[in-house]
Amino acid sequence: MLAIPLSSTVLPAFSTIINKNTLQSITHVPVPFLRKNYHLGVSNFYTKTVTTQFNVLPKTSDYSSLSTNLTEPEKERSTPQVEQDDEDQHEITIQLPAAEYQIADFWREIHGQNDWVDLLDPIDRRLRSELIRYGEMAQACYDAFDYNPFSKYCGTSKYTPSEFFDSLGMSQIGYDVSRYLLATSNINLPNFFRNSASPKVWSKHANWMGYIAVSNDETSRRLGRRDITIAWRGTVTRLEWMEDIKDFLVPISSKIPCPDTTAKVQTGFLDLYTEKDEDCKYCRLSAREQILSEVKRLLDKYADEEVSITITGHSLGAALAFLSAYDIVETSLKDLAADRPVVPVCVFTFAGPRVGNVVFRERLESTLGLKVLRVVNVHDVVPKVPGLFFNERSPPVMMKFAKWLPWSYSHVGVELALDHWNSPFLKRAVHDDPVRAHNLEAHLHLLDGYHGKDHKFELACGRDIALVNKASDFLEDEYLVPPHWRQDENKGMVRNKDGHWVQPERRVHDHYCHGTPDDDHVKCLDLASDDQYGDAAAAA
Amino acid sequence: MLAIPLSSTVLPAFSTIINKNTLQSITHVPVPFLRKNYHLGVSNFYTKTVTTQFNVLPKTSDYSSLSTNLTEPEKERSTPQVEQDDEDQHEITIQLPAAEYQIADFWREIHGQNDWVDLLDPIDRRLRSELIRYGEMAQACYDAFDYNPFSKYCGTSKYTPSEFFDSLGMSQIGYDVSRYLLATSNINLPNFFRNSASPKVWSKHANWMGYIAVSNDETSRRLGRRDITIAWRGTVTRLEWMEDIKDFLVPISSKIPCPDTTAKVQTGFLDLYTEKDEDCKYCRLSAREQILSEVKRLLDKYADEEVSITITGHSLGAALAFLSAYDIVETSLKDLAADRPVVPVCVFTFAGPRVGNVVFRERLESTLGLKVLRVVNVHDVVPKVPGLFFNERSPPVMMKFAKWLPWSYSHVGVELALDHWNSPFLKRAVHDDPVRAHNLEAHLHLLDGYHGKDHKFELACGRDIALVNKASDFLEDEYLVPPHWRQDENKGMVRNKDGHWVQPERRVHDHYCHGTPDDDHVKCLDLASDDQYGDAAAAA
Repeated sequence: MLAIPLSSTVLPAFSTIINKNTLQSITHVPVPFLRKNYHLGVSNFYTKTVTTQFNVLPKTSDYSSLSTNLTEPEKERSTPQVEQDDEDQHEITIQLPAAEYQIADFWREIHGQNDWVDLLDPIDRRLRSELIRYGEMAQACYDAFDYNPFSKYCGTSKYTPSEFFDSLGMSQIGYDVSRYLLATSNINLPNFFRNSASPKVWSKHANWMGYIAVSNDETSRRLGRRDITIAWRGTVTRLEWMEDIKDFLVPISSKIPCPDTTAKVQTGFLDLYTEKDEDCKYCRLSAREQILSEVKRLLDKYADEEVSITITGHSLGAALAFLSAYDIVETSLKDLAADRPVVPVCVFTFAGPRVGNVVFRERLESTLGLKVLRVVNVHDVVPKVPGLFFNERSPPVMMKFAKWLPWSYSHVGVELALDHWNSPFLKRAVHDDPVRAHNLEAHLHLLDGYHGKDHKFELACGRDIALVNKASDFLEDEYLVPPHWRQDENKGMVRNKDGHWVQPERRVHDHYCHGTPDDDHVKCLDLASDDQYGDAAAAA
Repeated sequence: MLAIPLSSTVLPAFSTIINKNTLQSITHVPVPFLRKNYHLGVSNFYTKTVTTQFNVLPKTSDYSSLSTNLTEPEKERSTPQVEQDDEDQHEITIQLPAAEYQIADFWREIHGQNDWVDLLDPIDRRLRSELIRYGEMAQACYDAFDYNPFSKYCGTSKYTPSEFFDSLGMSQIGYDVSRYLLATSNINLPNFFRNSASPKVWSKHANWMGYIAVSNDETSRRLGRRDITIAWRGTVTRLEWMEDIKDFLVPISSKIPCPDTTAKVQTGFLDLYTEKDEDCKYCRLSAREQILSEVKRLLDKYADEEVSITITGHSLGAALAFLSAYDIVETSLKDLAADRPVVPVCVFTFAGPRVGNVVFRERLESTLGLKVLRVVNVHDVVPKVPGLFFNERSPPVMMKFAKWLPWSYSHVGVELALDHWNSPFLKRAVHDDPVRAHNLEAHLHLLDGYHGKDHKFELACGRDIALVNKASDFLEDEYLVPPHWRQDENKGMVRNKDGHWVQPERRVHDHYCHGTPDDDHVKCLDLASDDQYGDAAAAA
């Protein structure tokens, strides 16, 4: 055991993340940072509500006293307690098992160095914990997104990059947002984008798509490396965008440099990643240009450090995760200085559709060595498209002939299949509802209870089941968690000094306007233009 | 003109309540009090958002500089401005037209002393302003009500009596809640009550029904008397309760002492007002007993003052307003000390149904001299029931024969008929929607624009049109006010110290438990029991 002194600003919270039955196997304990305002956020960290003080856990060397057994549905959830102003403030010492700090030594395995062999069944507790953490970073894209069609900021993040994690109650995540990602809606995926009804909308052509964040010094020490995370927003409330996903593959080389012109991806995803709009100051750069320039800047900044790149996304955001990961490995990392440490790239996706053909898969996995772990719910329809008829599960003989067809898709990487029938917390009556089955929070709940294919569902981290209903109605009513409970007070309306209720102004420009392709930081990338690869595409 | 020194705690807000075209006629200016937290509330007062400081209006003797003309639909609502921390704090003097303070001299007319003759067409500006104010006190019952079926406090007020108006952003109303009103749901109006899904619900038999409030000293000076207001909650989001309103009249004397056993009212309304449940500590007293005991207490307390009783309610709350007003005049006021000033009782209802038969009407109006002003929207279906076939509009000959039938109803008092077709702010396409037509905020909006039967719709007080959409989707989309925007952050869920999202505990008992019928304050009323009047009912 290690005795770790904790200052008043750092406090691990064990009471909800430790399960009696899995006590011996816990190794990952998130180290949360305290925050001033409560909001949404990850469930398995401790955060304070009002002050910067905090309640402390009892000194103990016996974790069973802190454990909660959530295997059976909680008939009565824990007694609600709103914190008062009279909480204690202590400098305390908590004894932790040494295993809690093994992430730093084990991160390469979590990152897929060995293709997660022997880590999935039974699942490694550290991998599960890290998957949930990255899933929550993807979920943050939903929680921050302004869906309100009556807002002139519809389609943006409600928070600025600097306040992003704080506003979501995720200060303890220990990352700083370094750049927001935007994409133009002038592409053939109209049902994906969210449009404002306001004639004074901030942009008629752009939508906020996610962010790039970098682990801070303290978190980097805990993780064993500086981690650059790219999180892509998908769409969780509606599945209409699937109508736009035509089974139509185009050579990736038509938009992104690729020596193999037979490697193809779905055209809509590729457009979303590479298109731009010169007339809109918010999408003068494609998502691709935004990412590659930022990755270059960050790799330069941390040239002397060990760095990993982790890309995550849910739903359509998973498709963008594949494409951006491919692009980073194919384009950004090829010219890295020989004397700098290797930069491993890993993709953790949730409920992602297929993206490309078998050649794309082979290039991603074998040629480039990209590591992909896909978390899916077996009842979710999205991972089954496109390529419903010809895909990686078709007989090899059939695929041999079909692999050149424009509707012959293949998943990439390793799949971790979850099954919402296994959770006793979820409503039986709506198990066939496609929107619920696709919900990201439901996936994270299923991850928390997953121990292996033939293992009993048992919440390992005690992740708050209330989060399942954050934007859905999937949790059994007996837990008394309101469905779709995540909402802003008065839909963001506030009273102005005339006493009228209005939507407050936000400053968008600074955080969304990323210069032009002529700016030095983009030019230096020497990115291929569309024209340059147009011939290759035509030839393919 | 009067020069009125204003301290730093009192500030009239004119900028939004003065219309250029009606400038000369304004007499009512609400005197707001500042508050610490912004929330919902009346629109035509100024309230601060964060601090106890406030912005001040410029010194001026020319009100045209402050006017806003909202006659034409605002194509672009006023620029949203969120207040900063750097606002000024001044002791200022504002010159007001003398007419602003004429409420104190005119309140008896507003209270119906002359049956509102010559005050309705064109409408008197002071009457309009006071009607809106009382309407907002009825609206407060909706804004405070906990509708959440996943809350174990479903069916209560979300706020304690002492924080009631502050929490609703209505500190400036200048009243203090003296008692909450509850009723038992063990009656034949099942669709009216809101039931929790929680097995640990605060009460399986009670629902919060409204409040009794008393004007504070400062407001009493402005109003010219101590005003006791009783506000009843109705139901605005659903109209299913109408299914329960059977055309069935019973003698009011079956439950309330009444010398005339032929005076009858709808049985469900009467039950709601008089029933109790000895097994539930929250409804051991009937609403009737709660009101009569509190009115007696307040009349004793203010025995030396001039006091008025004003009763208001919307929808089914209007029916309760009639019954409680009748009861107070028939029961409470009969034994008043001869040397105390007369206590006028007035009822202002909104969208109320019919309640009783012609005899009840005659007793209310002629015998007891109760003053009733009913505000209705001509497109609202609720004021048309019960008594769809036989009512006060039937030919006199028919009513002569029908007046004894158990389904022959009559409205009471004076009607002020509004028409939502007249407002250019409201959606044309949904004008026939029964729920929208019944909405209380829509009524208050229509009142603000009403000047007389053949007068143009023109917002007189500049009442915030955004309030129309507080709990409906009635405002034209062009104003970019989200529909149903009134909502709590995260449906009231907060994070407890374990990091779990829960519904916080509330203390209900102190504010809802009103003792027993054996308590002195109830006993002294010498209220008739049901039995005592059972015979009269049977005989009728």
